[in-house]
Amino acid sequence: MWHTGRQPDIIFYRYGYIIVMKTMGAHIIDRKKWRVEFRVYAFNRKDVGLLLNHGGGKTELLPMEKEEPHIFRTETEGLRNIDYKFRLGNDGDFPDPFSHYQPDGVDGFSRVIDHEHYTWKNPGWQGKELAELIFYELHVGTFTPEGTFQGIMRKLDYLLELGVNAVELMPVAQTPGRWNWGYDGACLFSVEHNYGTPDDLKKLIDECHGKGIAVFLDVVYNHLGPEGNYLPLYGPYFTGKYETPWGEAVNFDDQHCEAARRLVLQNVRYWLEKYRFDGLRLDAVHAIYDTGPKNILQEIVETGRDIATAGKRKVALIAETDENDINIINPPAEGGTGFDAQWMDDFHHSIHTILTKEKQGYYIDYGPLQNLEKVYSNFLYTGQFSRFWQKNRGTDASENPGQQFVVSLQNHDQVGNRARGERLGTLVDFPFLKAAATLLFMAPYLPLLFMGEEYAEERPFLFFVDYQDPELRKNVSKSRREEFQSFDWGELADPVEESTFLLSKLTPPDEWGEKNKQMFAFYKEIISLRKTHPALRWPNKKATNIQVHAAERLVKIERWGKGVLLRGLCNLGEKEIDLNKYSGKHILNTEWKQYGGLVEGTSQVLYRGNMIILEER
Amino acid sequence: MWHTGRQPDIIFYRYGYIIVMKTMGAHIIDRKKWRVEFRVYAFNRKDVGLLLNHGGGKTELLPMEKEEPHIFRTETEGLRNIDYKFRLGNDGDFPDPFSHYQPDGVDGFSRVIDHEHYTWKNPGWQGKELAELIFYELHVGTFTPEGTFQGIMRKLDYLLELGVNAVELMPVAQTPGRWNWGYDGACLFSVEHNYGTPDDLKKLIDECHGKGIAVFLDVVYNHLGPEGNYLPLYGPYFTGKYETPWGEAVNFDDQHCEAARRLVLQNVRYWLEKYRFDGLRLDAVHAIYDTGPKNILQEIVETGRDIATAGKRKVALIAETDENDINIINPPAEGGTGFDAQWMDDFHHSIHTILTKEKQGYYIDYGPLQNLEKVYSNFLYTGQFSRFWQKNRGTDASENPGQQFVVSLQNHDQVGNRARGERLGTLVDFPFLKAAATLLFMAPYLPLLFMGEEYAEERPFLFFVDYQDPELRKNVSKSRREEFQSFDWGELADPVEESTFLLSKLTPPDEWGEKNKQMFAFYKEIISLRKTHPALRWPNKKATNIQVHAAERLVKIERWGKGVLLRGLCNLGEKEIDLNKYSGKHILNTEWKQYGGLVEGTSQVLYRGNMIILEER
Repeated sequence: MWHTGRQPDIIFYRYGYIIVMKTMGAHIIDRKKWRVEFRVYAFNRKDVGLLLNHGGGKTELLPMEKEEPHIFRTETEGLRNIDYKFRLGNDGDFPDPFSHYQPDGVDGFSRVIDHEHYTWKNPGWQGKELAELIFYELHVGTFTPEGTFQGIMRKLDYLLELGVNAVELMPVAQTPGRWNWGYDGACLFSVEHNYGTPDDLKKLIDECHGKGIAVFLDVVYNHLGPEGNYLPLYGPYFTGKYETPWGEAVNFDDQHCEAARRLVLQNVRYWLEKYRFDGLRLDAVHAIYDTGPKNILQEIVETGRDIATAGKRKVALIAETDENDINIINPPAEGGTGFDAQWMDDFHHSIHTILTKEKQGYYIDYGPLQNLEKVYSNFLYTGQFSRFWQKNRGTDASENPGQQFVVSLQNHDQVGNRARGERLGTLVDFPFLKAAATLLFMAPYLPLLFMGEEYAEERPFLFFVDYQDPELRKNVSKSRREEFQSFDWGELADPVEESTFLLSKLTPPDEWGEKNKQMFAFYKEIISLRKTHPALRWPNKKATNIQVHAAERLVKIERWGKGVLLRGLCNLGEKEIDLNKYSGKHILNTEWKQYGGLVEGTSQVLYRGNMIILEER
Repeated sequence: MWHTGRQPDIIFYRYGYIIVMKTMGAHIIDRKKWRVEFRVYAFNRKDVGLLLNHGGGKTELLPMEKEEPHIFRTETEGLRNIDYKFRLGNDGDFPDPFSHYQPDGVDGFSRVIDHEHYTWKNPGWQGKELAELIFYELHVGTFTPEGTFQGIMRKLDYLLELGVNAVELMPVAQTPGRWNWGYDGACLFSVEHNYGTPDDLKKLIDECHGKGIAVFLDVVYNHLGPEGNYLPLYGPYFTGKYETPWGEAVNFDDQHCEAARRLVLQNVRYWLEKYRFDGLRLDAVHAIYDTGPKNILQEIVETGRDIATAGKRKVALIAETDENDINIINPPAEGGTGFDAQWMDDFHHSIHTILTKEKQGYYIDYGPLQNLEKVYSNFLYTGQFSRFWQKNRGTDASENPGQQFVVSLQNHDQVGNRARGERLGTLVDFPFLKAAATLLFMAPYLPLLFMGEEYAEERPFLFFVDYQDPELRKNVSKSRREEFQSFDWGELADPVEESTFLLSKLTPPDEWGEKNKQMFAFYKEIISLRKTHPALRWPNKKATNIQVHAAERLVKIERWGKGVLLRGLCNLGEKEIDLNKYSGKHILNTEWKQYGGLVEGTSQVLYRGNMIILEER
């Protein structure tokens, strides 16, 4: 069933049936003759046409043939540099929902992309196990002054120096306007033209691979952005059966759900195969509703496995979920969905509330120092009643290995969804900030940094969007004001203003102050220790022991491996703690002078916010 | 944690937490002093009172104490024959949602029931394996002229003569008015007062057990009836998160879902323990939405298992679902929900359309005679596209044993949801009707009869309700008219009219005609064969073979067991088929004279609609 010279369809076997999933969109099927095949799913349409724009400003309309129910096809030969739209009867001309590039944004023409144009230099990521990864989450638009893929490329040596080995890009699917976090993606296959071209993205990934850095992509399958989303014109991609926080749910189990299922499964395959991403981070899978016999998440995981097997490569799939549900990561044979890992908010919230004493929103469920003991080996919420959720929450993850959980001190949501977008660095005293980093890297989980965390960035990461529709602009500003009623609107940045976007750009290293440099030096050191020390390298929960002494606010963490014991001692209180009773070699002290502290060499005292790591062999 | 002398709470272990599920409602906790405990969940209420009515027409108001958040408790001593309501602040007095009896209907006072009053004569069902059951579905109100539990008791010998060994009662929870199918239950713990008292129901079950008949109950957890449903006043039992065909979904996973979860889990326990039902049939589980980590259906199954283990008894849980999803019946260790069996509509629809040629509604997906081959070993829809559902439907059940599926030629839905409520007996010629029965009992599944089927009842089973609210009455009549627009309203029975209910009552045996008696004799024979013949007794799919010869409309079914082969030959066409090439002892012929046919002894011909079973040893 693989037609030579054609874009292969996805073919798989389900419940005794061979399912052929026609590949939608525009694909070059013969580079010699420059034949391009166009295929579109247009539900219940009679007249579907292809509007071509191939230079000279003139357009041409080609009829499309019905290939099978709801699916229309045509092809061109000899034409290069094609931009196109589909004409849907008398409703108008619209971009291709499977478009690979939107040079003029979500509403403009779609461009045919030649995926063989880029010549890959590296054979793909030859890196570590998932268990060894240290993630660095970044937003392309604000990571560099340029805000582009090329900008990132110029900072790869910076990331290498820092020591992270996995970059996680916030979504790069095309969004409306000039700035956006990425979660308003409307063309799921189009590389954000604000960030560069498809070739730019490939080059970035290729160069990362050359430097031993894995690249992960954040993908959003729980909803689509409100602007430039033409999917409803093409077919029943949404259903009123369920409500999500962002409106109608994507239709994964209602009538004609094969359309949305195909969209998502082809999208998974597209990023992993055409761009060689090493893994995906699925946004908010708890808002993906599917009560059919085969959950779309299971099918996504199977698609990832198929690609890994066929390409003899590693592919990791990571889910963001707030349900604390181990079914997401448990293997399918045990009834689980089989994701490689999931985000674990409980870890973040526990440390955040211990450090800040905040109580607003979901932080009401957190706070006691004692919680650290539990979140070093399990969710904090493993079935007990949650005041914020107002129901019993979570499952017991004590038997799940540590590498199944991604934990962080900061991420785009935890920073950006605050009224003022403050990073932890502006909320917490410098010593405690370094202690927090040490707690993160001593935890038997996969650590994730949010860009800027490594040098205690003080600029905010704010919520910003650039909707074009005036009504949408007004609404997003208004709803932001309503969300943070207790704040003076004057002190809140308006999400639609360019200044909000610009304010969120990282400080260039040449503008760093002393504290930034000290923090960076510290992160380099703790990351290096994590990657190389036999007791820290593998996130082994069974070789981890933690004890909290609440009275003196002392946290003791032991990790061991290959006969070496590391003992972390952390003073989260204000009073000094005597260290005399603890032996071992001082291999890291957050208060060493090179990190802006008071101490050189061995210290007998744990100062406020001080953390020391001792080693016993 | 079991307090002597108190109604024990349900205590179970989940995710490392001991969950104490307070038992709600009124319970006699000391029969000597006649102490009665009242407990009610009244969300966010401050003032909750107990309004007592203990004879003499006078009422008395007792304050209730807050025992824990949202839960109020009080007790009385020395008072017998108590009727009561709960007073919710200034909102009024309302029946107990956990009431065990509503002598005056859904809106009236709740009655305290002494569950130790009835003395059980039999030690519980000592019967067969689930695999050997032959179900008889009945509606209490129309099964006998009296329409009561006592009425059924007088017909137990009739059922014994017929040979069925499991009675499945349509729901008996209290509904509004004087007649109702039962799916409008508003007080899930109250025995329908139209049918009798709690003691009457216990006596019926006890007598069934004495005669070796299991008793199953149909329970409805996907919605509650629209009238007399005071649950929303008591707490967040419903959620707008999902839509069901009957309005807001029961809240099994949203905020405060523990309320509805407790309601349902205690209800499961209540019927199985207090009434000694042998199993439950859960109505439309596909409309039970729960995306939390522990699905309520899993918890229902676990509750059933716990009761079976603790009571050293058999408990079977059967799900009605239209999803063709084997996850419902697969064991939890494989990610399934673990129901013992599920209803299989594909079997019904396949035979129904073959016999009637009907094409309306979901029958559009069925029709070809060839389908029989597949539905004898699997669902018909195992993943392929369904025109009615407009999506791919179903999973492959080929590896699931036959005893996991309940199949029927008729049931309350398939008959009662027709415009005119016609039974198969009025749609299909007598010979074909007997052939259909033979196809049912030769199938390797659990057969279910719908009351009246056994003697080819010709009266309809219509849809009837007796809402008290004039608006509801008008709406249900109107929506019925809209559903069946193509019918002349004059020829459709109005669901709210008493005559519709009375028309649906079964013909008493002394009014039977010749055909009724012949059919009954035939059902007795085929049921007896199914129960005793070594090739038919166990629903073994692997010892079953079926071949359809479409040209002559001949169906050949082979079943074998213990060295004996049964060959069923069925002529579903109009032309006679020569039987000479088939050998074997004629052990059943639908055309034998005692069944109203043309033949005595061995026949060389298969007449139209004729089915013959041959035996080879």
